[in-house]
Amino acid sequence: MAKSVELSSFDNLVANSLTESELEEFNRIYYGRKDHRFVQINKSNIEFAKHNNFDIAAYDFPAQKEETRRPRIVKVGIIQHSIAISTDKPIVEQRQSIFDKIRNIIIAAANEGVNIICLQEAWSMPFAFCTREKQPWCEFAESAIDGPSVQFLKEFSAKYGMVIISPILERDKIHGDTIWNTAVVINEFGEVMGKHRKNHIPRVGDFNESTYYFEGNTGHPVFETKFGKIAINICYGRHHPLNWLMFGVNGAEIVFNPSATVSGLSEHLWSVEARNAAIANSYYTCSINRVGTEKFPNEFTSGDGLPAHKEFGHFYGSSYVTAPDGCRTPGLSRNKDGLLITQLDLNKCRQIKDKWGFTMTQRLDLYAESLKKAVQPEYECQVIKKK
Amino acid sequence: MAKSVELSSFDNLVANSLTESELEEFNRIYYGRKDHRFVQINKSNIEFAKHNNFDIAAYDFPAQKEETRRPRIVKVGIIQHSIAISTDKPIVEQRQSIFDKIRNIIIAAANEGVNIICLQEAWSMPFAFCTREKQPWCEFAESAIDGPSVQFLKEFSAKYGMVIISPILERDKIHGDTIWNTAVVINEFGEVMGKHRKNHIPRVGDFNESTYYFEGNTGHPVFETKFGKIAINICYGRHHPLNWLMFGVNGAEIVFNPSATVSGLSEHLWSVEARNAAIANSYYTCSINRVGTEKFPNEFTSGDGLPAHKEFGHFYGSSYVTAPDGCRTPGLSRNKDGLLITQLDLNKCRQIKDKWGFTMTQRLDLYAESLKKAVQPEYECQVIKKK
Repeated sequence: MAKSVELSSFDNLVANSLTESELEEFNRIYYGRKDHRFVQINKSNIEFAKHNNFDIAAYDFPAQKEETRRPRIVKVGIIQHSIAISTDKPIVEQRQSIFDKIRNIIIAAANEGVNIICLQEAWSMPFAFCTREKQPWCEFAESAIDGPSVQFLKEFSAKYGMVIISPILERDKIHGDTIWNTAVVINEFGEVMGKHRKNHIPRVGDFNESTYYFEGNTGHPVFETKFGKIAINICYGRHHPLNWLMFGVNGAEIVFNPSATVSGLSEHLWSVEARNAAIANSYYTCSINRVGTEKFPNEFTSGDGLPAHKEFGHFYGSSYVTAPDGCRTPGLSRNKDGLLITQLDLNKCRQIKDKWGFTMTQRLDLYAESLKKAVQPEYECQVIKKK
Repeated sequence: MAKSVELSSFDNLVANSLTESELEEFNRIYYGRKDHRFVQINKSNIEFAKHNNFDIAAYDFPAQKEETRRPRIVKVGIIQHSIAISTDKPIVEQRQSIFDKIRNIIIAAANEGVNIICLQEAWSMPFAFCTREKQPWCEFAESAIDGPSVQFLKEFSAKYGMVIISPILERDKIHGDTIWNTAVVINEFGEVMGKHRKNHIPRVGDFNESTYYFEGNTGHPVFETKFGKIAINICYGRHHPLNWLMFGVNGAEIVFNPSATVSGLSEHLWSVEARNAAIANSYYTCSINRVGTEKFPNEFTSGDGLPAHKEFGHFYGSSYVTAPDGCRTPGLSRNKDGLLITQLDLNKCRQIKDKWGFTMTQRLDLYAESLKKAVQPEYECQVIKKK
């Protein structure tokens, strides 16, 4: 679905143009380390990925050795993908066509020994909220306990002993058939551990999501999995430092940010926000964006005075991972499906807290008090005026 | 004082290596706009800067036209500089030598019609906290009301009708001769409006500042100046999203981040944190770093197991400005004094709040409640474990 005119990779643009010594300086300042620390990928897997038209890349984030703790090394796989068939096809066919391509990527991840997988936001459907049409799109909403996506993924979780995070459009039958934007966490036995609902909902550009669902009511849960303490900050929540903060306060070591965002709106923010969160909270962040341009059957406007059209903007992919010390991987492609594998030593989180001291110096008590005052309707800002 | 081996500019590294169309894509994704929107600088001023060995650059951040508000255009000048003479010289001479170079840069700023100037952290002294020696360095501490720095700057404020922010080491005579890390705000009449004390103090690497002063006790004041509502987040406070947030809550339109930070420690974070704050809080941020390598009379260790030495690391300059929409200027040099001028339309802050809706969607009430619980000693993290 990707437009051929789209730049394929921000990272390659620079990597292909600088001399070796220049690139070292660029990498040191931009990525945080001179060397990307590639992890070798099985040759057969590289072939498999090529054959199935997705990229695969792998990087290492080691930690220092400790005397009293063993390394806690986890392999994380994040997946970005375009939709697979036209959006005017039947719902079940559209979903199945996505399942078919995701199956291959999960198999590739399993072959590389990946422990945790996270998919993109609303991964099993087109991002149809731009249309503001309730039908047929609401039919994609599914149970977080036994919907088609959960059923599909459970099998792989159990078979490969992986934790899988599945961000879906949730239909909550228990509470009046309400719809939510939800991430389901499935453990390594294929059991649903629980879910998190998106805390912050956009009202910008074509992101008419508040037409479909409310702000989440599940707080800031951290899932204590076999492979570490993980949390999910869904899409627009990445613009809110307090959302990131509370996952950190609750002990997260890896926070996933499954997203759907387009160029023209957010691309210059993409490398900043999740990365800042990793730094501020001394945890790993995994940023996942959709890829490709999605076209819808009926025309819609974008609240910008421009004529009606049928295409969403370009989802620019560029998924990447940041370590607690602020070092990051290059991004995946801007226009192709991809699997980004990172080998993370979770010991790094506490090591960076000890080194930089951000949790020690964060003065949460001061801010608890400040916010309590700030939310009062009659709050008086602390302003110093001319005498 | 700068080492000649240091890369002179991250931004030029890329700008000089890409083709025109590649550079447009790089600029769009990295800086947030294809075109840097240079503002013309008077020829005589360019000559003056060259003659006095500092760089000068100017950029424009316009806003959309509105029907009911006029544009509120402010020219901001941020200054980065190295120390001027050896650190074994008498205190008064060291300070005077810095005054002498700053005088020229302020004159250049005035010639360009700058309205607000901000200097770097502890601008009138070497950043001697690495030594952990109390003498002679504590002698640089000065009154925030009528110390030498304030006296020096007041004259320019009044003469040129400028607001000047002066980050100094403060000696608080009223409260037991205590020392603070403080930014003094001087209004366009040469009067001290008030001050802000650094809220978060580092304990990392050579930044032994907690040996000299405590966490600030002045809250998060916003100064309502003739040229807009401004605030100061001093140095290490940039690692704390809540610190940035409270300046936003109190209505800041421009937040200055006068800093002193070295390569090897923070350079890959430098372009992330203040920029993230501008995005998250819909205000302008101005990031100012020292420049050059400072050498001290006696050797000191850095808590890293390495031998004692006399040099601090390299302060890498690279001062830059970010707009509320996340677009940013290129940075100043990594090794040379410089004046960065930006022409900001303050109307952009509210325009971006309307567009992106981050203040509307930030759910401060939720977080006020969450933090109140989180700071309790017996707080139980929200953790979901395996059944």
